[in-house]
Amino acid sequence: MPRGPLLVVGGAEDKLRRRTILQRFVDLAGGPDARIAVIPTASSLGPEIVEVYDALFRSAGAGEVVAVRPENREDSHDPALVERLDSCTGVFMTGGNQLKLSSIVCGTPVGEAVRAAHHRGAVVAGTSAGASIQSSHMVAFGVGGTTPKQRMTQVAAGLGLIDSTVVDQHFDQRNRYGRLLMIVAQSPQLLGIGVDEDTAAVVEHVEVDGEDHELLSVLGRGAVTIFDPARLTTNAYEARRSAPLLASGVVLHVLPEGSLFDLTTRSLVPPEAVVDPGEADELAAAGSDLRALARDIAAGDASPGALRRRRARSQVRPAPRDAHDLAPDLAPDLAPAAPTTGGDPA
Amino acid sequence: MPRGPLLVVGGAEDKLRRRTILQRFVDLAGGPDARIAVIPTASSLGPEIVEVYDALFRSAGAGEVVAVRPENREDSHDPALVERLDSCTGVFMTGGNQLKLSSIVCGTPVGEAVRAAHHRGAVVAGTSAGASIQSSHMVAFGVGGTTPKQRMTQVAAGLGLIDSTVVDQHFDQRNRYGRLLMIVAQSPQLLGIGVDEDTAAVVEHVEVDGEDHELLSVLGRGAVTIFDPARLTTNAYEARRSAPLLASGVVLHVLPEGSLFDLTTRSLVPPEAVVDPGEADELAAAGSDLRALARDIAAGDASPGALRRRRARSQVRPAPRDAHDLAPDLAPDLAPAAPTTGGDPA
Repeated sequence: MPRGPLLVVGGAEDKLRRRTILQRFVDLAGGPDARIAVIPTASSLGPEIVEVYDALFRSAGAGEVVAVRPENREDSHDPALVERLDSCTGVFMTGGNQLKLSSIVCGTPVGEAVRAAHHRGAVVAGTSAGASIQSSHMVAFGVGGTTPKQRMTQVAAGLGLIDSTVVDQHFDQRNRYGRLLMIVAQSPQLLGIGVDEDTAAVVEHVEVDGEDHELLSVLGRGAVTIFDPARLTTNAYEARRSAPLLASGVVLHVLPEGSLFDLTTRSLVPPEAVVDPGEADELAAAGSDLRALARDIAAGDASPGALRRRRARSQVRPAPRDAHDLAPDLAPDLAPAAPTTGGDPA
Repeated sequence: MPRGPLLVVGGAEDKLRRRTILQRFVDLAGGPDARIAVIPTASSLGPEIVEVYDALFRSAGAGEVVAVRPENREDSHDPALVERLDSCTGVFMTGGNQLKLSSIVCGTPVGEAVRAAHHRGAVVAGTSAGASIQSSHMVAFGVGGTTPKQRMTQVAAGLGLIDSTVVDQHFDQRNRYGRLLMIVAQSPQLLGIGVDEDTAAVVEHVEVDGEDHELLSVLGRGAVTIFDPARLTTNAYEARRSAPLLASGVVLHVLPEGSLFDLTTRSLVPPEAVVDPGEADELAAAGSDLRALARDIAAGDASPGALRRRRARSQVRPAPRDAHDLAPDLAPDLAPAAPTTGGDPA
């Protein structure tokens, strides 16, 4: 059975105007056939937050919405809650306190049922706290700031739906560069993934040339930032108290909507070249005119006046094309062959 | 004539308690033999700010402090101001508005006299605005934020004391990751250098194996962050309005105090291994004990009781040594051979 898609949402997804992310979630869950389980455990609110998402998902066309709301580890052994997860096509974990959520569900039948839903192909989404818990290693809490400093954050274990990663959210809005860098400096086998507000990392398993690749695409208003510390040099094992950390050689990827990143090869899937239709038309016109000019020259019929007039007709509007032409070739080593199957239908 | 050292200070250098950076500047300028020219043009204050630095530099042991305060481009042609710069051993440019500073001095005799001072070996320092102006390309102004977005900042031309770079300051405190990334995404031939408050990047030209290398060392409480976009893939040439930018493959270096970075090869100079004296003593003791044990075994004299007692005596305190052993080898390609001459006397 193929693993289902994951929606890792950076918090504050638009609920009023541009509901791109919530709509994508409902569509992936099956639209009118969707049966969505909402887990509001991270939140200090209970029925209220479920009511909001119930209304949002139904207005986006979802068939059914049920609540799965364990409030302690005992609840997380309730077979009735497990049954709701076993029969759903989508799971949505709300924001709140991710350490509350992980403390209550990780390593319980409810937690295992979320993992099982992902492994049988259901879509699993979470926003803010519900995003953090999806990674193998979870930011428990910490402070903001750009420069990584020793002890600025704590790591706990997450649900592990995405292996070898640590996810942070509200990334731009709460300035969490430093704490995510601190974590990957201490654990260079992890990939750090920071998701901005009203932005989703959509993670899907896709077969490319017979191999399973985990592809990440981006949806929404902000960006997804990836820190790859594989080639890092650091002093994180000996920096004292709250000293700034040495973290040299981290590879950084900032990915806005429309980007596609291969988590398996840790590289950008190069964007397809976009042809400007106006430019193509101009080139075609200029080309046909130049062919006419070549014929005239061959026939000895190219007076200076004719050349000037022709040049005026065939003038191509100047445009800064260098970057257009060069950009896709700038990072040949980083860019793998495009996968045969795209990860993002958008 | 060798080029003088540059002190690129991220603003808010400690003036009351730990005056490491200001002291280093005065020492580099010659201490009692120093003749320091203070350029307060970026500031909206005039004599007041010169008085503050005059008192600070004199209390740090500087022989003489003079003001060079052009308030318009006409002033910047004043031979008396140029003469003060021509006879100084150190130049200090204060904080304020870097676009005011560059508009008034760049391309004038005063601006050329600052460049000449650097090229004849004088130390040139600047804090905040006075830091920004030292690079070839200067952040004119812009907004904060972690995620790089189109149009979030403007670039103007700086004094060009450091080639092919753009310097930003108050980097952690004002969250300027995004705007520095935007600039290098649009200009991938530049190295982006972000300096935290109360932190200095000390840039010195050092001959290594007969070649001139530009080395950057770090002094102070925060870190210096370097973005190397040489292998970048970006959409910065076509991103619309204020859209987040694609910036994939940027190499990131966060450098705290004590780090040494080669701007010429764009790589970290690997830190020297530090041996923990306690651990060395323990290993020596354990080694001599183990040699005794080997002799006993060879002599058939190793009873279980003798082995237990010996093990208790030779017990090495457990310590997480893996990172110690591995870290210097993590990034062999990024790490050049250590230069024969260190760039930082500290």
